Amino acid sequence: MTAPTFPLSYRAVELQTYNTNPVRAMLGLRVVNKSITHIASNHLLIKMQASPCNPSDIAFMQGGYNIHKTLPCVPGFEGTGIVVAVGAGINANDWVGKRISCFAQDDSDGTWAEYLIAKPEQLIPVDDNLTIDQAACFFINPFTAYALFEIALRNNYQALVINAAGSRVADFMLALAKHHKMKTLGIVRRQQTMETLRQKGFDHVLLSAEALFPENLKAALKQFDSCVAYDAVGGEQTGLIANCLPKNSKIIVYGGLSGNAVSGINPMQLIFRKLSISGFNLNDWMNGVEDEKFNTVKNQLAVLIKSGEVQVPISIQVSIDEIVKGMRTYLGAMSEGKMLIRF
Amino acid sequence: MTAPTFPLSYRAVELQTYNTNPVRAMLGLRVVNKSITHIASNHLLIKMQASPCNPSDIAFMQGGYNIHKTLPCVPGFEGTGIVVAVGAGINANDWVGKRISCFAQDDSDGTWAEYLIAKPEQLIPVDDNLTIDQAACFFINPFTAYALFEIALRNNYQALVINAAGSRVADFMLALAKHHKMKTLGIVRRQQTMETLRQKGFDHVLLSAEALFPENLKAALKQFDSCVAYDAVGGEQTGLIANCLPKNSKIIVYGGLSGNAVSGINPMQLIFRKLSISGFNLNDWMNGVEDEKFNTVKNQLAVLIKSGEVQVPISIQVSIDEIVKGMRTYLGAMSEGKMLIRF
Repeated sequence: MTAPTFPLSYRAVELQTYNTNPVRAMLGLRVVNKSITHIASNHLLIKMQASPCNPSDIAFMQGGYNIHKTLPCVPGFEGTGIVVAVGAGINANDWVGKRISCFAQDDSDGTWAEYLIAKPEQLIPVDDNLTIDQAACFFINPFTAYALFEIALRNNYQALVINAAGSRVADFMLALAKHHKMKTLGIVRRQQTMETLRQKGFDHVLLSAEALFPENLKAALKQFDSCVAYDAVGGEQTGLIANCLPKNSKIIVYGGLSGNAVSGINPMQLIFRKLSISGFNLNDWMNGVEDEKFNTVKNQLAVLIKSGEVQVPISIQVSIDEIVKGMRTYLGAMSEGKMLIRF
Repeated sequence: MTAPTFPLSYRAVELQTYNTNPVRAMLGLRVVNKSITHIASNHLLIKMQASPCNPSDIAFMQGGYNIHKTLPCVPGFEGTGIVVAVGAGINANDWVGKRISCFAQDDSDGTWAEYLIAKPEQLIPVDDNLTIDQAACFFINPFTAYALFEIALRNNYQALVINAAGSRVADFMLALAKHHKMKTLGIVRRQQTMETLRQKGFDHVLLSAEALFPENLKAALKQFDSCVAYDAVGGEQTGLIANCLPKNSKIIVYGGLSGNAVSGINPMQLIFRKLSISGFNLNDWMNGVEDEKFNTVKNQLAVLIKSGEVQVPISIQVSIDEIVKGMRTYLGAMSEGKMLIRF
């Protein structure tokens, strides 16, 4: 490997303006030339290999995420690549040549570029058994699922209710629940997803569109003293689920896919059944977690992924020049898999 | 005092059927003759002097409370009277002749009767400085306020946001907040209540009906890192308040006066501002609190009430025969004060 020479010219995807309409936001993306003149101390330079597009990237481009970068900016919250150079204060021998997964949620440039400047705490070294596809998607979905599942485990909830159960986060939660022998109930929008989820191993699968959905949910949860419900949908569905949960249950909202405000929660459910509702944000979790624990979690997740037990499906891979085409496909069928930009 | 002779005949208010319409529920009340043949062991007999009607009694009669007694039944969750006899296992010298406040939320007969059979844990001895009016209302509002306020204190919230701030529970919370030098923001429906609350000492008073209510609430709370909001209203107001709270705040729902489901909560508020929503129920608190603590709280509340700092206003006092007339007045102007049945 030859060390890069500075100034280093490279290409990156740039977002020009936030737009609440996701299609318009996507059409505002440009591929531009940028250059890096030096690596600041305690930073590393990564030659990127691949970055995915996650729902949180879409929310970011819509201006609806809690991270607002100074525009224009490079989007992309995670990816994979190889460390090619380091700034002062970093031992080159420890890092240069290492394959890494990376996480980029601060105000600096993101992962949708041929090069990324990052700090060591944003990187996890990955071994050769992890494919580029899986290394590129190693942070957001698996760690979200782990952090969410941990709440169920810590509070001894008897069952997991997972809305939007066809998602990648749900896949990982299911795998973790199976390992801990916890019961799982998945809620989906489409009939055709039901059979897939049953095959994956959900104990119950319910269709949210069905008229009898609340009755079915109540019946399925009758045997449990308390449950935790994970909701990435929001809107009326959060209320529908809330009103069916047994006493002492908890709802954790970690997404708002419906685009609607949480509604329909019976106040008597809150008061007499001691329900609580709160939110979850991966960034807060990452900032709060201790190094040792982070490493343990990382190793557990790597085992799950390398065993093939859980995989993040990639539905389309594109070059940086095909970004708009790729996103169009992704936006049309998000549940089928992620879009990966290959550099 | 002469000991009562058994069978003891007395009169009681009886609810014949639950009815979601509060006026119809009220019209279903009857004054009936009942008799007590003996006092079970570990129980006491109380000659009642007065019992109030609280919003929770109305909710109970509507069938919307978590306590459902076998019908017909005697309503009434609290009151005051004198212990006149005891069953086996209770030392008569400790109790007979004592003035007490009482709390009755199990499936047995309630306080709207000339006599009540209760267990020692449902009673608090009160001294002669507490008026009958205040002793009759000593349990539900003051203890609710204390238990709610305690959440603010324990979690170091910087300010209290109180919806339906013209209520008795709000009065007690305000007094407790002043003692602990915590900031208070009251939310009311009517312009005329605003000045009263300012005089009582709320730091801010806002009108929920105003178009700029969310902006005003946000502006008033800008200086605080986190707040606790107490909501007895539900419906869209819970959402309006939720979306204005600073990061790490909490909403506690302890009533549903609007009759509507909690709605309008922005999922991003839950996720990125780490908001949580939960319910509070006095009965659960009572069942969980230790004796020693209960006594400390009781004494603190008695001091507040006897000092005249907080009083439960009584707007109408009626005999047991005038129960329907009294409730009609109470239902028409609940915010002006409680109805008290005098025996």
